[in-house]
Amino acid sequence: MMYLEDFAPGQKHVSGSLRVDASAIKAFAAQFDPQPFHLDEDAARGSFFGGLADSGFRPAGGIIGTRAEEMKWPRPVRPGDELHVEAEVLEVRPSSSRPGQGFVKCRTTTLNQKGEPVQVLVMNLLAQSRAAATARQ
Amino acid sequence: MMYLEDFAPGQKHVSGSLRVDASAIKAFAAQFDPQPFHLDEDAARGSFFGGLADSGFRPAGGIIGTRAEEMKWPRPVRPGDELHVEAEVLEVRPSSSRPGQGFVKCRTTTLNQKGEPVQVLVMNLLAQSRAAATARQ
Repeated sequence: MMYLEDFAPGQKHVSGSLRVDASAIKAFAAQFDPQPFHLDEDAARGSFFGGLADSGFRPAGGIIGTRAEEMKWPRPVRPGDELHVEAEVLEVRPSSSRPGQGFVKCRTTTLNQKGEPVQVLVMNLLAQSRAAATARQ
Repeated sequence: MMYLEDFAPGQKHVSGSLRVDASAIKAFAAQFDPQPFHLDEDAARGSFFGGLADSGFRPAGGIIGTRAEEMKWPRPVRPGDELHVEAEVLEVRPSSSRPGQGFVKCRTTTLNQKGEPVQVLVMNLLAQSRAAATARQ
């Protein structure tokens, strides 16, 4: 057991390792992130990832987070809580390095039945421009 | 399907709702976050949460993230990848509002078998001071 006094900057801890196989990716995704690029090898090959991947509205290509800027849990979720998600778009910008792609910054708030936030996430998602997607077809 | 051009700051999207029951909390936790306060009502009552909760080393009281400052996925996880986690303590500070508690800021890097990072997470964890934990016993 480690207490507050036992932690110090620069300490490093290393875990054991875990092999992630295709069936584990699909089983997790089926329940928690059912997007085609997690569930089906053929769909995966046509996606941003170019292969079955675990990475983690309805943007074309799926919901692909590139970087979360903040994630917090202001209060716990209790058994029986009824949750829903509200997402607000904060910022939209084209990618400077990848033409035809861009980033959508969203604040995603998960609320319980009392309207209290239980998770707040500010995430940058990948989006493709319509022009580029159409040109590809 | 929404393309880059379809997103604009201020847009709001609201999901349907989902009821989270105790068995769902336990089933998820058993596989992905097997800490006593997620798995057992009695253990949960004695924890920071004061009840079975879904919230997100070996700190006394469990690994309880309060706020992630950054989370990114530099590359995808592929089927067959072998992952491990390295955690580095970046900062330790006592809580100003809750005596006997404090925060440990960690950078947690998940690496594949080539040593390439697939997830980087900077998280603030709750920690209890030994003094406070001992006084309570």
